[in-house]
Amino acid sequence: MTKTRLEAFSDGVIAIIITIMVLELKVPQSTDWETIKHLIPVFLSYVLSFIFLGIYWGNHHHLIHSIKGVNISILWANLHLLFWLSLVPFATAWMGESNFEKVPVIVYAVLADLCGIAYYILLMAITKHEAKNETMLKVLKKQSRKGFFSIIFYTAAIPVAFFHPAISCIIFTIVSLMWIIPDRNIERTVHNHPH
Amino acid sequence: MTKTRLEAFSDGVIAIIITIMVLELKVPQSTDWETIKHLIPVFLSYVLSFIFLGIYWGNHHHLIHSIKGVNISILWANLHLLFWLSLVPFATAWMGESNFEKVPVIVYAVLADLCGIAYYILLMAITKHEAKNETMLKVLKKQSRKGFFSIIFYTAAIPVAFFHPAISCIIFTIVSLMWIIPDRNIERTVHNHPH
Amino acid sequence: MTKTRLEAFSDGVIAIIITIMVLELKVPQSTDWETIKHLIPVFLSYVLSFIFLGIYWGNHHHLIHSIKGVNISILWANLHLLFWLSLVPFATAWMGESNFEKVPVIVYAVLADLCGIAYYILLMAITKHEAKNETMLKVLKKQSRKGFFSIIFYTAAIPVAFFHPAISCIIFTIVSLMWIIPDRNIERTVHNHPH
Amino acid sequence: MTKTRLEAFSDGVIAIIITIMVLELKVPQSTDWETIKHLIPVFLSYVLSFIFLGIYWGNHHHLIHSIKGVNISILWANLHLLFWLSLVPFATAWMGESNFEKVPVIVYAVLADLCGIAYYILLMAITKHEAKNETMLKVLKKQSRKGFFSIIFYTAAIPVAFFHPAISCIIFTIVSLMWIIPDRNIERTVHNHPH
Repeated sequence: MTKTRLEAFSDGVIAIIITIMVLELKVPQSTDWETIKHLIPVFLSYVLSFIFLGIYWGNHHHLIHSIKGVNISILWANLHLLFWLSLVPFATAWMGESNFEKVPVIVYAVLADLCGIAYYILLMAITKHEAKNETMLKVLKKQSRKGFFSIIFYTAAIPVAFFHPAISCIIFTIVSLMWIIPDRNIERTVHNHPH
Repeated sequence: MTKTRLEAFSDGVIAIIITIMVLELKVPQSTDWETIKHLIPVFLSYVLSFIFLGIYWGNHHHLIHSIKGVNISILWANLHLLFWLSLVPFATAWMGESNFEKVPVIVYAVLADLCGIAYYILLMAITKHEAKNETMLKVLKKQSRKGFFSIIFYTAAIPVAFFHPAISCIIFTIVSLMWIIPDRNIERTVHNHPH
Repeated sequence: MTKTRLEAFSDGVIAIIITIMVLELKVPQSTDWETIKHLIPVFLSYVLSFIFLGIYWGNHHHLIHSIKGVNISILWANLHLLFWLSLVPFATAWMGESNFEKVPVIVYAVLADLCGIAYYILLMAITKHEAKNETMLKVLKKQSRKGFFSIIFYTAAIPVAFFHPAISCIIFTIVSLMWIIPDRNIERTVHNHPH
Repeated sequence: MTKTRLEAFSDGVIAIIITIMVLELKVPQSTDWETIKHLIPVFLSYVLSFIFLGIYWGNHHHLIHSIKGVNISILWANLHLLFWLSLVPFATAWMGESNFEKVPVIVYAVLADLCGIAYYILLMAITKHEAKNETMLKVLKKQSRKGFFSIIFYTAAIPVAFFHPAISCIIFTIVSLMWIIPDRNIERTVHNHPH
């Protein structure tokens, strides 16, 4: 099992997930301006998840790019991550169509948490396998710190959603921003230690 | 982040978008000739968007092929473009199923505009990164000129659709033709400056 | 535009078409044996189109593998072919769900014809571009002969479907068998003239 | 026909199958806790099939990786396998939505059986073609033994489902576990005989 194929398969699955999500945007029967207004929550939910998956794609790509080989634990940890990511379109559609109601927002927060935990498990499987790969360790250090905070935030968003689902959605947005902004630094690190 | 992976991911996403669009063609319950007549607007809308996405695929491919590397701005500018492109199947289906009614045609024109602007942002991110890559500058020169006219046309199609949605659709067709016809010239330019 | 990318994009699109077709197999609400009986025409229609697309994938792959370069005519002829192929899931579902009624069978026959013509146009675009590529000419000779007969058969299936849709379906099956059986010969030819 | 393309096409199709399966998870209209309870069988069915397809992807990848070339029999045996695998999302959704009722569970067992048989046919087509490839023979030996037991188990699950569908589902789980656990050994074998 070469890492190239794992990379190609994972990239393929993430590309499909991010794209089929649009199929959950149901075509409205009506054509007045009111219809547009009803589409707004569905659209916002879509934007949130598109960025969420985009970040995962970028991070996953950085991570796999930095490793040298793949073993069976990494393979299954990776499939486990893809499993939870594959549920994002479902949770996204439910949250959007329900206009960010309590239960769907809780489900979304739990799912985001599970994706984060699955990513963490993948990080651990890789660390165990490539304990001496310095490039990977640098990527891992940054990602595991941010990953840790993400899981804390998503976990906090679960009880919050019982009372104020809107605040949970703000938490989702903050986590995404946290990942987008300092990505530039990771890139610099990788660039300074080419492989 | 190598450009090969960006290319593969983008090609993958565009391939999926162009293909899943057909899932919006709902299978009719009836089987008489009348049914075929009702399918015509949906079919025309599909043809329009298939060509629209085909042009984006070709242009995007030419552009990425001409560059040497990828930085974080290009990565996000590219994801931003893919985001708007991913909404094309939705807008296509709504426009077709409503038989080219006012609101869906306006939405389609706005979306086409946003795709054009996103492409323009990608062009700028690339120019900033590869200011001395001459092959890229040639491709960029052609594409930014045509891209500029496309945005003008699509923007014009928005107010026009309030009164005559049909004219907006003619504008969409003209823009597509503008891209299809002189593509041959771009190819010649690229061919004369191999890289 | 390298042929590798055209090949990857086409393979990707055909892989997606052949796979999303299954989404048209609607999950039944009931769970008795009667339900299975109603699924049979949908299943048969799916089998027919799976083989149809499998043959196109194989032929297309052989053809593109044998050529050396790609120009803009080949690019658009290829997109044109993918356009008609992308409509196969729709026609398949309509034919199956209507239990092979007249109009959907006619539509299927017309679509199969258009796919055949689009493939023929692609063959001509390639011949014009690579008139001296002998490996390609051998592949082309076989494919254009069989392609010619396919178009004749599919065209014949159109008027036949007005009276006996079942006979048209038998014609579809015969054409598929014609392609499957002598493929071995093509392979031998390609094998004897490596490139 | 190079094995690289067969590998890419198969990986692509399996990636699409595993991912579009989520589209069968219909977004509920309600948003209370009761809804979650109704989603459980659908979710369990999804988990089962995700692992089922993940195992096929891994095994198929190992197998194709170990061979040297591809002939027309392998090509069609492979397409035949992909055909049955492509029906998994349908059977999964039906089984889940019906809360594991008799008929859908029988259909799932029959389909799992057909996938196993199709894999076996592929194994035989490869053995015939590469009788002297030792790496492949080692992979094949392990896979054909486990494949044989899988077919026995799935076949047994068919009559069992007539009386106790739940026991059939336990059989499905046991077969999956059988494949997941000793995979490590196969990897070791492949690792000791690099190619």
